[in-house]
Amino acid sequence: MKIVITGAGGFLGRKLSLALLGRQTPPAGFDHPLAELVGADLMPPPDLRDPRFHPVACDIGDGQAVRELVADADLVFHLAAIVSADAEADFDRGMRVNLDGTRNLLEALRAGGRRPRLVFASSVAVYGGNLPETITDTTHLTPQTSYGAQKAAGELLVNDYSRKGYIDGRSLRLPTIVVRAGEPNLAASTFASSIIREPLAGEEAVCPVTPDTAMYLLSPRRVIAAFLHAAGLPASAFGGWRSVVLPGLTVTVGEMVETLRRVAGDKVAARVRWEPEARIQAIVAGWPARFAPERGLSMGFAADTSFEEIVRAHIEDELGGRIA
Amino acid sequence: MKIVITGAGGFLGRKLSLALLGRQTPPAGFDHPLAELVGADLMPPPDLRDPRFHPVACDIGDGQAVRELVADADLVFHLAAIVSADAEADFDRGMRVNLDGTRNLLEALRAGGRRPRLVFASSVAVYGGNLPETITDTTHLTPQTSYGAQKAAGELLVNDYSRKGYIDGRSLRLPTIVVRAGEPNLAASTFASSIIREPLAGEEAVCPVTPDTAMYLLSPRRVIAAFLHAAGLPASAFGGWRSVVLPGLTVTVGEMVETLRRVAGDKVAARVRWEPEARIQAIVAGWPARFAPERGLSMGFAADTSFEEIVRAHIEDELGGRIA
Repeated sequence: MKIVITGAGGFLGRKLSLALLGRQTPPAGFDHPLAELVGADLMPPPDLRDPRFHPVACDIGDGQAVRELVADADLVFHLAAIVSADAEADFDRGMRVNLDGTRNLLEALRAGGRRPRLVFASSVAVYGGNLPETITDTTHLTPQTSYGAQKAAGELLVNDYSRKGYIDGRSLRLPTIVVRAGEPNLAASTFASSIIREPLAGEEAVCPVTPDTAMYLLSPRRVIAAFLHAAGLPASAFGGWRSVVLPGLTVTVGEMVETLRRVAGDKVAARVRWEPEARIQAIVAGWPARFAPERGLSMGFAADTSFEEIVRAHIEDELGGRIA
Repeated sequence: MKIVITGAGGFLGRKLSLALLGRQTPPAGFDHPLAELVGADLMPPPDLRDPRFHPVACDIGDGQAVRELVADADLVFHLAAIVSADAEADFDRGMRVNLDGTRNLLEALRAGGRRPRLVFASSVAVYGGNLPETITDTTHLTPQTSYGAQKAAGELLVNDYSRKGYIDGRSLRLPTIVVRAGEPNLAASTFASSIIREPLAGEEAVCPVTPDTAMYLLSPRRVIAAFLHAAGLPASAFGGWRSVVLPGLTVTVGEMVETLRRVAGDKVAARVRWEPEARIQAIVAGWPARFAPERGLSMGFAADTSFEEIVRAHIEDELGGRIA
């Protein structure tokens, strides 16, 4: 089988590529083993030294390029996106990549006529505004960012293209992914990784929100498992709606740093400097932090069991078990 | 002031044009009286014999044409759409008009840099699938038609363009409009007008659903009043979300025909032939019929007080008071 990943050059795209190449069996519903994995991004992703992996440059906003990219794909993971703060700062770029890009991909998959399976990385940023204390599977979407609006519109299209039988789509609403490796990005949530990653690497990190700020988190390990699980579910598992909130962990930023202290000691935890910044605090406070993701749980998606599990996984996966 | 109506050649577009030309004062928030009303549709709408009215041909799917259309508009009513059954039968046409057309309009209004006011005709077709017994202002949108998905995506964009300050938009979710004058159209709901209109004009009409089928209705008079009311509300009335469900009347098809009997007599009511058709019954049964539109009511939108009021208004407005 042939699999395509958009946004394959990103942190999650690379992890997903490695996970797919490392699997012995194709996702349920596919008969043939992985023969070709195309990793697409604006710049070709780094090679992964596997003959099945083909890194390619593709601008998701270019309809013809996308059509060529997915012409004979059996399964596509659509991770390419302009992140929240960036899509807010550059509206046109966000629309082009997050909305037109998704549309281009859906049209390209439809044009192939093979009803390929699509896993779309949406986000809990689709929620916003006046929300109940706990988000349920029937909470309405009133996004208050362009990123959230573009993801919500993308979900509507994924659902309708699936309903029409053009594709077999599934949209996963991702919690904030923590701990990301690498550099901070333009997402307003980037600090949530920084305050764990930097201290563990021997560097200071600034936390721009107060310790009582609650967040809804999922680890890289678990979100990769969720992508793979979503790819193998039968369409019938989704019923009449192709979107699902991924189960995550609700934890305050104060608890996150206390966990870091428990796992890595006082010296490491002391590398977090608390410097609340009104602008970031306001954005993060607007994000929902408490969810009752019954649908996702019933479909077999799983959250991390504790924030400690998330920190220990980061130390294992990204630091080779070593703390600075 | 200059006002533009898209879909001005349709039944509601024409009524709205006449209502705007007949008003003595501009909507609240506008300082100058109506100087120019541009009525746009794929074919130029019939002239209305008012020097302020300019019928023009404009394909809403053509971005450049739309930009010229609304270049200096103060207020736009966006009624142009491919209706439900048509958008379902011709997916590409529905996407082009209902989604790309709305996007073209939003981009054109943004490009003008004048933050014009926009009233967008959405629909209760944004609801679908597993719904609560009564739809509230916080019920989630899981549309099960392409028309509904396109309208829901349009609402997301109207909200985001408004939030960004590019336009001052308001989206109205219209109930089924009854009684429409003229010919049946391609909407699955067209029978709801036919079973009143045709008998009153001396003709037979077929009712393809059972008498116990409930519908959520609004009269042409009330929806025109709602468009005008929406145009005059301050942006603050919408808070952080620009969509509102219009209050309507929940009535069964059996009650509709019994009202026709009460108003126009047995002979007229006997012109309705009951011939349930599984396909139409299934579509209409999937539409929500019961709503608690608190938000719309609190904003001053009003439903018809009875179905009899709707029938009598049709006889007055369209039949000159005469029943065949």
